[in-house]
Amino acid sequence: MYCAGKTPGQVGAIAAAVRARPDVVTLFTRAGPGHAAAVLRELPDARHDPEAALLAWPPQPPAPAGGLVVVVAAGTSDLPVAREALQTARYLGRRTELVVDVGVAGLHRVLGRLELLRRARVVVVAAGMDGALPSVVAGLVAAPVVALPTSVGYGAAFDGLAALLAMMNACAPGVAVVNIDNGYGAGHLAAQIAAPAPAEPA
Amino acid sequence: MYCAGKTPGQVGAIAAAVRARPDVVTLFTRAGPGHAAAVLRELPDARHDPEAALLAWPPQPPAPAGGLVVVVAAGTSDLPVAREALQTARYLGRRTELVVDVGVAGLHRVLGRLELLRRARVVVVAAGMDGALPSVVAGLVAAPVVALPTSVGYGAAFDGLAALLAMMNACAPGVAVVNIDNGYGAGHLAAQIAAPAPAEPA
Amino acid sequence: MYCAGKTPGQVGAIAAAVRARPDVVTLFTRAGPGHAAAVLRELPDARHDPEAALLAWPPQPPAPAGGLVVVVAAGTSDLPVAREALQTARYLGRRTELVVDVGVAGLHRVLGRLELLRRARVVVVAAGMDGALPSVVAGLVAAPVVALPTSVGYGAAFDGLAALLAMMNACAPGVAVVNIDNGYGAGHLAAQIAAPAPAEPA
Amino acid sequence: MYCAGKTPGQVGAIAAAVRARPDVVTLFTRAGPGHAAAVLRELPDARHDPEAALLAWPPQPPAPAGGLVVVVAAGTSDLPVAREALQTARYLGRRTELVVDVGVAGLHRVLGRLELLRRARVVVVAAGMDGALPSVVAGLVAAPVVALPTSVGYGAAFDGLAALLAMMNACAPGVAVVNIDNGYGAGHLAAQIAAPAPAEPA
Amino acid sequence: MYCAGKTPGQVGAIAAAVRARPDVVTLFTRAGPGHAAAVLRELPDARHDPEAALLAWPPQPPAPAGGLVVVVAAGTSDLPVAREALQTARYLGRRTELVVDVGVAGLHRVLGRLELLRRARVVVVAAGMDGALPSVVAGLVAAPVVALPTSVGYGAAFDGLAALLAMMNACAPGVAVVNIDNGYGAGHLAAQIAAPAPAEPA
Amino acid sequence: MYCAGKTPGQVGAIAAAVRARPDVVTLFTRAGPGHAAAVLRELPDARHDPEAALLAWPPQPPAPAGGLVVVVAAGTSDLPVAREALQTARYLGRRTELVVDVGVAGLHRVLGRLELLRRARVVVVAAGMDGALPSVVAGLVAAPVVALPTSVGYGAAFDGLAALLAMMNACAPGVAVVNIDNGYGAGHLAAQIAAPAPAEPA
Amino acid sequence: MYCAGKTPGQVGAIAAAVRARPDVVTLFTRAGPGHAAAVLRELPDARHDPEAALLAWPPQPPAPAGGLVVVVAAGTSDLPVAREALQTARYLGRRTELVVDVGVAGLHRVLGRLELLRRARVVVVAAGMDGALPSVVAGLVAAPVVALPTSVGYGAAFDGLAALLAMMNACAPGVAVVNIDNGYGAGHLAAQIAAPAPAEPA
Amino acid sequence: MYCAGKTPGQVGAIAAAVRARPDVVTLFTRAGPGHAAAVLRELPDARHDPEAALLAWPPQPPAPAGGLVVVVAAGTSDLPVAREALQTARYLGRRTELVVDVGVAGLHRVLGRLELLRRARVVVVAAGMDGALPSVVAGLVAAPVVALPTSVGYGAAFDGLAALLAMMNACAPGVAVVNIDNGYGAGHLAAQIAAPAPAEPA
Repeated sequence: MYCAGKTPGQVGAIAAAVRARPDVVTLFTRAGPGHAAAVLRELPDARHDPEAALLAWPPQPPAPAGGLVVVVAAGTSDLPVAREALQTARYLGRRTELVVDVGVAGLHRVLGRLELLRRARVVVVAAGMDGALPSVVAGLVAAPVVALPTSVGYGAAFDGLAALLAMMNACAPGVAVVNIDNGYGAGHLAAQIAAPAPAEPA
Repeated sequence: MYCAGKTPGQVGAIAAAVRARPDVVTLFTRAGPGHAAAVLRELPDARHDPEAALLAWPPQPPAPAGGLVVVVAAGTSDLPVAREALQTARYLGRRTELVVDVGVAGLHRVLGRLELLRRARVVVVAAGMDGALPSVVAGLVAAPVVALPTSVGYGAAFDGLAALLAMMNACAPGVAVVNIDNGYGAGHLAAQIAAPAPAEPA
Repeated sequence: MYCAGKTPGQVGAIAAAVRARPDVVTLFTRAGPGHAAAVLRELPDARHDPEAALLAWPPQPPAPAGGLVVVVAAGTSDLPVAREALQTARYLGRRTELVVDVGVAGLHRVLGRLELLRRARVVVVAAGMDGALPSVVAGLVAAPVVALPTSVGYGAAFDGLAALLAMMNACAPGVAVVNIDNGYGAGHLAAQIAAPAPAEPA
Repeated sequence: MYCAGKTPGQVGAIAAAVRARPDVVTLFTRAGPGHAAAVLRELPDARHDPEAALLAWPPQPPAPAGGLVVVVAAGTSDLPVAREALQTARYLGRRTELVVDVGVAGLHRVLGRLELLRRARVVVVAAGMDGALPSVVAGLVAAPVVALPTSVGYGAAFDGLAALLAMMNACAPGVAVVNIDNGYGAGHLAAQIAAPAPAEPA
Repeated sequence: MYCAGKTPGQVGAIAAAVRARPDVVTLFTRAGPGHAAAVLRELPDARHDPEAALLAWPPQPPAPAGGLVVVVAAGTSDLPVAREALQTARYLGRRTELVVDVGVAGLHRVLGRLELLRRARVVVVAAGMDGALPSVVAGLVAAPVVALPTSVGYGAAFDGLAALLAMMNACAPGVAVVNIDNGYGAGHLAAQIAAPAPAEPA
Repeated sequence: MYCAGKTPGQVGAIAAAVRARPDVVTLFTRAGPGHAAAVLRELPDARHDPEAALLAWPPQPPAPAGGLVVVVAAGTSDLPVAREALQTARYLGRRTELVVDVGVAGLHRVLGRLELLRRARVVVVAAGMDGALPSVVAGLVAAPVVALPTSVGYGAAFDGLAALLAMMNACAPGVAVVNIDNGYGAGHLAAQIAAPAPAEPA
Repeated sequence: MYCAGKTPGQVGAIAAAVRARPDVVTLFTRAGPGHAAAVLRELPDARHDPEAALLAWPPQPPAPAGGLVVVVAAGTSDLPVAREALQTARYLGRRTELVVDVGVAGLHRVLGRLELLRRARVVVVAAGMDGALPSVVAGLVAAPVVALPTSVGYGAAFDGLAALLAMMNACAPGVAVVNIDNGYGAGHLAAQIAAPAPAEPA
Repeated sequence: MYCAGKTPGQVGAIAAAVRARPDVVTLFTRAGPGHAAAVLRELPDARHDPEAALLAWPPQPPAPAGGLVVVVAAGTSDLPVAREALQTARYLGRRTELVVDVGVAGLHRVLGRLELLRRARVVVVAAGMDGALPSVVAGLVAAPVVALPTSVGYGAAFDGLAALLAMMNACAPGVAVVNIDNGYGAGHLAAQIAAPAPAEPA
């Protein structure tokens, strides 16, 4: 449930409707304070992650299954989008880990997390500005990389376009790109990639 | 080994060097007739798929393991890029299937291949022009979709940019995009996604 | 009468002038609350469709003539623009039907409305994001399709540009495109296409 | 059948296959000399319009029905694309008329053809450079206008993009746009719009 | 004096400084209400044209000399920019005339003003959306045309870019283009073109 | 007569037709060697300026009248376009002077020609790459400046787009811009601006 | 420390943390009034340059070493960005000089500062609109030029893109470009270039 | 001397003229085989580096002075542009070193050259595709980095635009960018930055 273009009233109505389906996880993404209040009025026990601008209900994610999803945020400004990806993967039933502030300007930081990165079944890399981190990560791990451009930056960053283009041209293979700031899409895709073997058709 | 910017001489030298490493699969992609001749001079038993503009050596792909990779070409013009993706996945050790000419203008065709599509661990969808097919496929299957824009089209297709943008904005979740005409990248990513469980870190 | 760039005062003055011409239908499009109040002050019986941001006067549309205009909205966010198209066609004298929430990510929904779509003399298809729906609809019906890109989406949707480009490259013939969010233009064109035979010159 | 990306051999094979279906009109569009020769080898009586780069088989268009399609070319350089549109509409069964060299820099020329333009059920307007003619024509006739941008021009014409944008922003209502140089699409759409009443669903 | 990026305080300071130079005309362009108040505080007799967002001091323009400058606004929304051009030319010492609401969708209106247009030494044509009017006017007069694109429009108008591109590609010779919404520049250039013969070097 | 998109045969036919009208100057612009030969076959005494890719007939320009047109080429690579502008103005009856190789990287060169520049009734400035010269010239002279962007440059020059944009944003007033490489348009406009007073309507 | 995307609270927390490190210069750039207040609450003696939207702590810059950094602002609107560059270089330990309002439309002003410009080890040139000044300066000095495009301008300035492109195409060698409005980056680079010889490796 | 747009004849004439000035180094850049032959005919002892498409005369570079210039090529395809930069710096009197094939997809390679990189007074980094390497290098060294985007890549690389944008948004400070494939400009700038102290004004 993408809230950004909707009124709190519309979001609240959806939240009310959802209450009848506790068997299905519902995610409210891009939820501003007004949206969040409207959801919490209907679903007081919903889990709210304000930094990710996301609410989840039922509040408890499913028991994790499948491979590990590691979400990497190049800088602290990329964190909201990265957390949206992480929460999405988590509520779709995956184990998740978050790695923050490992931009390419300080290689030792990303190299310092290599062991974790190499345990991942899939790595989501959120980066704005030069969008260089997915190339670097894809060169370090054997797992597929979901590149998540963010609108962090200014001027010739063109609201994430520079990062998006860089990621489309990643010089390491194994990188695919989702829309700018599309944390939900990146997390969803990562959850599919890391889905447990039973989900894999014979 | 991306041949497009290299001379046949350079490609031939690489082919000669590769002969010492029959344990590693080498793919020569974007190989024109001159490149192909240069490779075959050094590696006469290399497998040549002219439609995919690709040569592989050793000629025999590894025994397949992991999940099924289904590659879909929206139209016959998308076939070269689609075949490049398919051969890449196959030589990286995956089972592959090809589905052709199932563009969104004739929905019954894609719906007629639903059973196969749903058996895939990952689907690669190559499309130019409006780039609409990945959205449709992602709405029909639970597996992740690698969207592969092609430069097929003219005018406002802008050499694949229109397709690329459409795919970035796919209205179904579970879609990630690679560079225009990047069949190798799509096939490589698909092979990673469909890698057998042992490759999945505990 | 396009209100968006005008002050309520200017719009009110036009509404006052229009009162002398009850024989001509006047549409006030892109009318915000202030514009609407200014119109209703002068023309209290004007018909106001707030969702379409449109007022019509005289309130009663002409008796319908000509072919059926079906307006399709890919998602609920496309509804305001779609309703603007529909009301325009209706006040220009056509029978109209609205079909909502039939995006390409859920093909069964659009396939479920096939009978209605095939009765249309012309179909208007409003869609944002990947702009894929007009291609799909044009592949299903024999009537012409007016593709109406909307600014729904974010990031690489570029305020409707991605949808516009996709629609320009529709892989089914029979599709023409109007400006982003131009519901009025789409409805006007549809009314012309579906005009009754007498309007057709011998 | 769009020939541009195909080899003469591929086009010839399609021409051979088509021979079994004289009940269906087949159009070979964007056919260069090599394509044309390949078609004529298989279908010696095909009608060839070299200026439109188009071949039709069977050579005789169907008996015309429905409304009149008027195709307007702003300048002589727009003529190939305009003729492609005209032939397409004609072989889809419409009466057609061609108006040439009536660019907006010489208004008297377009005003001199007003009587014909006003008899049309639909007008196709092909123009490159500033793409201004569709606006002018739509202001003169009550019928819908299919705007067909061409790649005629240089520099900031950007291969038809300037014309396309101008047409999307036509200041007269009743204009819809097809892809740059897409004569086939414009002609097809015009034929649908001018289809005879029986084709119009009750 | 371009006010847009300055504070009222900065503009007021410049107005105060200007008071010592009544022999030179000063124009305050893009002056919002706050800027205007600041200017009028220092120069109470300045002439304020709120629609053009412009103030002039000394209030009386110089006695006109040279040729006639005709400024044309395609629509009423183009009027502010057109008036800025007109006032600029007037305060630089030219005779000026204004022609409004003569967009290409209603050719009879522009044709109805032909006599005036042909008396001009230079014509400034302000237009947004499709930017088609300068082409039409240049085809009707022998004088040079200064094309002034405006940001009027929405969607694919891209804030005046569509109009600018159309004007760069005007199919009549004798058209040159200034920046989007640059009424001052257009008026300044027009005043130079229509400067009296003495200004013309032997 | 713009030759670029035409065959030598078409151009030759026009040249033959022109022979009957020695009272009108005809310019053949963007004429390659083949075009030139075709023209000279029909009009053997036509004046051919190969560097400007232009032929004129009758060969003798009219007696000059009106003000002086100075054409400035920033670099030698801008010379063909500059000469096209100069010849156009000359054959339309103006006195002309050419100034070459005065790019902004060597200010002393342009400053060294100040006396000539200040005698001009209008200055045409052809420049590619950074397109900076028109700003500089407009700051030095009182006459209007016609900025003529050229496609000289590479990479981020984007075939003249960078120069075009710079010229649209010239920080000196009195600059208007024509299309990239449009020497004919610049020369035509300059001839209009420098037209003799009798041409100026009372 | 780039403040623009952070809350005052976040910035204040960083300021508090910085207090323990008086041996390192910390710069708070793009600091709005709220950010500034938050910093000053924690570091009351920080030096605040409101025009540059920058705070520095410790307030005293290091003793200058290395070559002279001259920062040039084309117009007064470019001053904030230019000052950000200057302060950055100064707090990184360089001698700095500021030159203002020397745009190319008034060459005598930049020529009047030639002696200072030629004393510089590196020149930073901030300019918006046509971005022409770096070309001019690079033609006048032997030192490297750091071109700093600003978002000053409107319409086809495209928020600094026109200036950026012009600077990338500077026709004098010795120019390199940083991001739009990136005063910090320009100042940092200039400080590196003008670093004292000891910093230069043998 | 940039040869690309010139004929071999023109280049040869310049080479002949240069012969009289053995005291000045002349570089012929972007010299194809024809240009090279023309130069060598006039200056038989010129040094020709075919891979860099460059000739230098007199053949012997000046005795090196100043700091070390290290030129880095991300991949072998970036080598021609990188060599053009290196030769330029060398013939302007600097010591130079070349580092090849250290793209970000294989970090160990660039880390393996750290000692050399840290000895540089300035580093030129040539990279196409994602343009990520300058960010990485700038994070590893204290010297300024000249980022040199190349047109290596395809599809969404847009002939170097993606790399250029990434470099403009480098997340490490100390990076400035030159035009795409502008090896000469990068080398010239690097030579200026690494100029010996005497060149540094007191």
